[in-house]
Amino acid sequence: MFKAERIDDALIELLCVKGQMVEESLQKIEISYDDIASKNKGPYQTETIIEILQMLACKTSKKEQDSKVYLHSRDHQLENSIVKVGDTLIGDQQPHFIIGPCSVESYEQVYHVAEQMSERGMTLLRGGAFKPRTSPYDFQGLGLNGLQILSEVAKQFNMSVITEIMSTESIDEAYDYVDVVQIGSRNMHNFDLLRAVGKLDKPVLLKRGLSATIHEFKMAAEYILNEGNNNVILCERGIRTYETATRNTLDISAVPILKQETHLPVFADVSHSAGRKDLLIPQAKAAIAAGADGVMAEVHPNPQVALSDAKQQMDLLEFHSFMDQLDNFLHRFSLSASV
Amino acid sequence: MFKAERIDDALIELLCVKGQMVEESLQKIEISYDDIASKNKGPYQTETIIEILQMLACKTSKKEQDSKVYLHSRDHQLENSIVKVGDTLIGDQQPHFIIGPCSVESYEQVYHVAEQMSERGMTLLRGGAFKPRTSPYDFQGLGLNGLQILSEVAKQFNMSVITEIMSTESIDEAYDYVDVVQIGSRNMHNFDLLRAVGKLDKPVLLKRGLSATIHEFKMAAEYILNEGNNNVILCERGIRTYETATRNTLDISAVPILKQETHLPVFADVSHSAGRKDLLIPQAKAAIAAGADGVMAEVHPNPQVALSDAKQQMDLLEFHSFMDQLDNFLHRFSLSASV
Amino acid sequence: MFKAERIDDALIELLCVKGQMVEESLQKIEISYDDIASKNKGPYQTETIIEILQMLACKTSKKEQDSKVYLHSRDHQLENSIVKVGDTLIGDQQPHFIIGPCSVESYEQVYHVAEQMSERGMTLLRGGAFKPRTSPYDFQGLGLNGLQILSEVAKQFNMSVITEIMSTESIDEAYDYVDVVQIGSRNMHNFDLLRAVGKLDKPVLLKRGLSATIHEFKMAAEYILNEGNNNVILCERGIRTYETATRNTLDISAVPILKQETHLPVFADVSHSAGRKDLLIPQAKAAIAAGADGVMAEVHPNPQVALSDAKQQMDLLEFHSFMDQLDNFLHRFSLSASV
Amino acid sequence: MFKAERIDDALIELLCVKGQMVEESLQKIEISYDDIASKNKGPYQTETIIEILQMLACKTSKKEQDSKVYLHSRDHQLENSIVKVGDTLIGDQQPHFIIGPCSVESYEQVYHVAEQMSERGMTLLRGGAFKPRTSPYDFQGLGLNGLQILSEVAKQFNMSVITEIMSTESIDEAYDYVDVVQIGSRNMHNFDLLRAVGKLDKPVLLKRGLSATIHEFKMAAEYILNEGNNNVILCERGIRTYETATRNTLDISAVPILKQETHLPVFADVSHSAGRKDLLIPQAKAAIAAGADGVMAEVHPNPQVALSDAKQQMDLLEFHSFMDQLDNFLHRFSLSASV
Repeated sequence: MFKAERIDDALIELLCVKGQMVEESLQKIEISYDDIASKNKGPYQTETIIEILQMLACKTSKKEQDSKVYLHSRDHQLENSIVKVGDTLIGDQQPHFIIGPCSVESYEQVYHVAEQMSERGMTLLRGGAFKPRTSPYDFQGLGLNGLQILSEVAKQFNMSVITEIMSTESIDEAYDYVDVVQIGSRNMHNFDLLRAVGKLDKPVLLKRGLSATIHEFKMAAEYILNEGNNNVILCERGIRTYETATRNTLDISAVPILKQETHLPVFADVSHSAGRKDLLIPQAKAAIAAGADGVMAEVHPNPQVALSDAKQQMDLLEFHSFMDQLDNFLHRFSLSASV
Repeated sequence: MFKAERIDDALIELLCVKGQMVEESLQKIEISYDDIASKNKGPYQTETIIEILQMLACKTSKKEQDSKVYLHSRDHQLENSIVKVGDTLIGDQQPHFIIGPCSVESYEQVYHVAEQMSERGMTLLRGGAFKPRTSPYDFQGLGLNGLQILSEVAKQFNMSVITEIMSTESIDEAYDYVDVVQIGSRNMHNFDLLRAVGKLDKPVLLKRGLSATIHEFKMAAEYILNEGNNNVILCERGIRTYETATRNTLDISAVPILKQETHLPVFADVSHSAGRKDLLIPQAKAAIAAGADGVMAEVHPNPQVALSDAKQQMDLLEFHSFMDQLDNFLHRFSLSASV
Repeated sequence: MFKAERIDDALIELLCVKGQMVEESLQKIEISYDDIASKNKGPYQTETIIEILQMLACKTSKKEQDSKVYLHSRDHQLENSIVKVGDTLIGDQQPHFIIGPCSVESYEQVYHVAEQMSERGMTLLRGGAFKPRTSPYDFQGLGLNGLQILSEVAKQFNMSVITEIMSTESIDEAYDYVDVVQIGSRNMHNFDLLRAVGKLDKPVLLKRGLSATIHEFKMAAEYILNEGNNNVILCERGIRTYETATRNTLDISAVPILKQETHLPVFADVSHSAGRKDLLIPQAKAAIAAGADGVMAEVHPNPQVALSDAKQQMDLLEFHSFMDQLDNFLHRFSLSASV
Repeated sequence: MFKAERIDDALIELLCVKGQMVEESLQKIEISYDDIASKNKGPYQTETIIEILQMLACKTSKKEQDSKVYLHSRDHQLENSIVKVGDTLIGDQQPHFIIGPCSVESYEQVYHVAEQMSERGMTLLRGGAFKPRTSPYDFQGLGLNGLQILSEVAKQFNMSVITEIMSTESIDEAYDYVDVVQIGSRNMHNFDLLRAVGKLDKPVLLKRGLSATIHEFKMAAEYILNEGNNNVILCERGIRTYETATRNTLDISAVPILKQETHLPVFADVSHSAGRKDLLIPQAKAAIAAGADGVMAEVHPNPQVALSDAKQQMDLLEFHSFMDQLDNFLHRFSLSASV
């Protein structure tokens, strides 16, 4: 009989031999319950022994491990991905801001917002031209006209346009007007659309689904990366929970998890997460403190008459106050609010 | 001063006059906070008075009220919609069963399932040819080949094919092989796809989104109905909750709510809701007891080797046992398990 | 070197020896990362080897394994537990109904409900004397007076009283008036209270916590059983989800899961789960179809003026209609609505 | 007939008279559907008119309005409450840290943690003596012995003890050893316990329930305040959601909402929210950036052998690294990590 203090040493020794054999494919992995049960003299249950043999079989399978190195993962790429939008480098350790109205409603509306952004040297202009709406009777966006307005205003102020594309059909017509294609929450699982924007030569801002797990979110990004488009920006935007004080619950932990597990830039959309203007500043500060590469927020010259999401959009004064507070916050970290 | 007992009468009188004026558009709805505040001598808060004036402005707007009678609602159509699939009338007060493998894998696989269904006189054959998968590296379905297999087997047994379509692009190529187009949970908010199948002359089985509210589910159906396709079947399939004992939580209350509030047939998918074979029978009984028009479940000749959802699919023996128990259950209600 | 085909045999042999030693306590369980790392020659990661050693250390602990056959489990007791309340046998394969007002408000109120129940031969009278309320300023129940009313009315009609006890302090004063002690959702995790009612010689109706998992629910029952009280009735009452069409989401799957995994009777509270009277009948039918041993519902002679939960309580006419429909439903299964 | 532009003026006038009458109790609030229906000449529905009359009846009820100024609200007290614990002022605009092991296991264990805290000038020592555990067979804490250990170590280092009390019975025996009574998540709805600690002359740290809404959380605090104890600290600790990457989802928005709507100090428990050590630093930074008055975290000299929550506790080195990073973060805001 083995002496008590030696049994673990013997086990480790044997495990090393076993591992080597599996690795050299000297041993086919075939586990027969009956065979093992007949050899098992106890006291462990046969299931326990089978579980161990299965662990030993798969943990050396190098090929399987390799296939698990997803394109989005830090194991695939250690350094942060930098997504270039105009002259702005998203993911360069400085927080950037994507600002604009929920929906494009008119040239004047977009112009007024962009003008104020321009005063602060900001360049990332968002606006919805195709709007996903719960009801078919709600305002569905200005479509192509909206894109043209965005593009025209952006040119005037030397800005880049970020806008949602809802279907593969509209990619072509939108192409010339858009600098960053946004995939909305409701389309995070629209795999054909993910594949289509994966073939584009423009960056994609991918929003987390309404109730997507972080794993599903990363795998949606994988669909895009797998088609060859490496310029993906992830955007946490709040998840569905039982809480009704906020429209969604900003999952702040998703930010550091995504930063740790992927090499992609991570944004937080503070307008959609809470659906409350009074939480924009603390949410934005929290997101940046947690490591976000940027913040997305909605601004409208006259939110009371906005055709969508009236409650959550800042007016121009509120926008400046928001940016002043964040600039001050960032300044203390020696970080300028980037554009 | 008014006498106490008269004040309400005066108010009612005045409200009637106000309503008449609003209706005749004699009065523009323009509410100025400052103006009302200056006229308000208390004790009500100005906000209270504004709230009342807003109620009065919108509650007479007859056009708005009319638009709220959604096409899916019982107010729009009192009697139950019957959706004809082959010779089967879905919504005819008898529960129907949609059965088949999760994914189409081979002709033999589908044939074996259809053969057993045929023995029981069942006609609604499901199978996935285009599979929405979290990972781009997972089995994505046989595509067009899968549709051809389904269609061929269905013809042989005089059955109808129900299969998921994931994009507007694949509608055309799928058209000839499909009898009922399924919109999956991940696409319930893919509004372009909803509109596209709304233009088809084939019935649509619409699954509830992973975390869609019942209101959002009904409005997704409205997108289809609004394009002219009245043959919509709703399918509750479990929602995302914190509970981990089941893959999703079957929202049994959604069945009677949808039956009350819409005129559309309502199914329950008992395979995806729990993700556990041991709950299929009680869930199916509960769904029927709660008023469902039918049940959807997955059957595979050899679930252990299934390319997707191995754990939740019944084998052929389990399928017959499932149907025997439900037939017995239905028989007691003088309802034959319809086909 | 071992020959390839022998390595698993050797491993099994060694595992048996190891298990025997651990069992005979010849080996102290002390795992040092550094020590193992130094002995590990690869290719397995040291973490893998530690994981295996930890499995081996705990999986032979027979005492621990035994303790895992929980008192609530089917493995501990194969046959259904029957809980006797007066002459009623809960868990006897016939559905029973627990009926009464949300809160006890007056003798007359309880009398009117009990009188109607009595007409139908029903014996399980519920009513809240101690009410858990979100706000300290809301009606907190009549307390001891409420218990006396319940008890007096119950005696008159030869019924049993089911009422919630919220603290260990009130158990003594309540004892004489109560036949079944209810533990409410908000107290499912009040472990001291669970232990206290575990020492009582009266049955306990344990409600699932607002967001308790099924596992946590079973373990809460275990606290009671572990103190010696075997008369535990489980009650599913809806869980918190994002859905707002119902107050809670009745987790219908919990019923068959609890029936499979425990030997305890399982009820469904259809009043609290949905918070909507129009769903009481389909929910009750679904619960019984899914295997529930009974249904709990609230009835009030005049719900509009109820001091709590006005919207979800049936009036007396609605109560008879509810019971008529369920009697009819049960009759078809040759089951009489038990009392 | 009134002229169009005068009708609103007349209505406002009439509403003021009505309000005055209700206030002077000249008018009994008795609304009869039939009576109003007979007087209503349209076009408003009778329900609309009744709704308005009900608004008018309750909105002047000053007593009701007053009762709605809850003790916890900013309307009741504009300035921040400061809770004094030893010489530490919680709520004084500087973040404070509550540190210690999950469970008290031995004198040495607590001593080692307190010693390191003392080096950094920290004074708020936490440790669990009574442990709420899902299973009755899990380690339930050292009870009174644990309290004595905590108290002895705290005295040695001039610290204050924060520990959970799970029942009204243990308040007396714990009293002498405890400086701040913690109410755990599972007891947030244990109203008798809330009332009991509301009568204490010691501060209470109240944790948010596992799935409590922010409203319910505030009302639980109200139970304590309403008994006369004003020294309540709120603690966000993550809520139950569908996400499985973290144990709970830290609801970061709850911090600014609670700071805006109450005058009480707000902490964030970063150990229980995520259940992952790798998220402690970003979560703590986010909480402080969002306005939290402090952070709670678990430290154990040897987490691998901890009797509870092994995965989420920092060891002593990790603790110093955690505090170094937060000190650095706070320093940039000219805030010293308070004690």
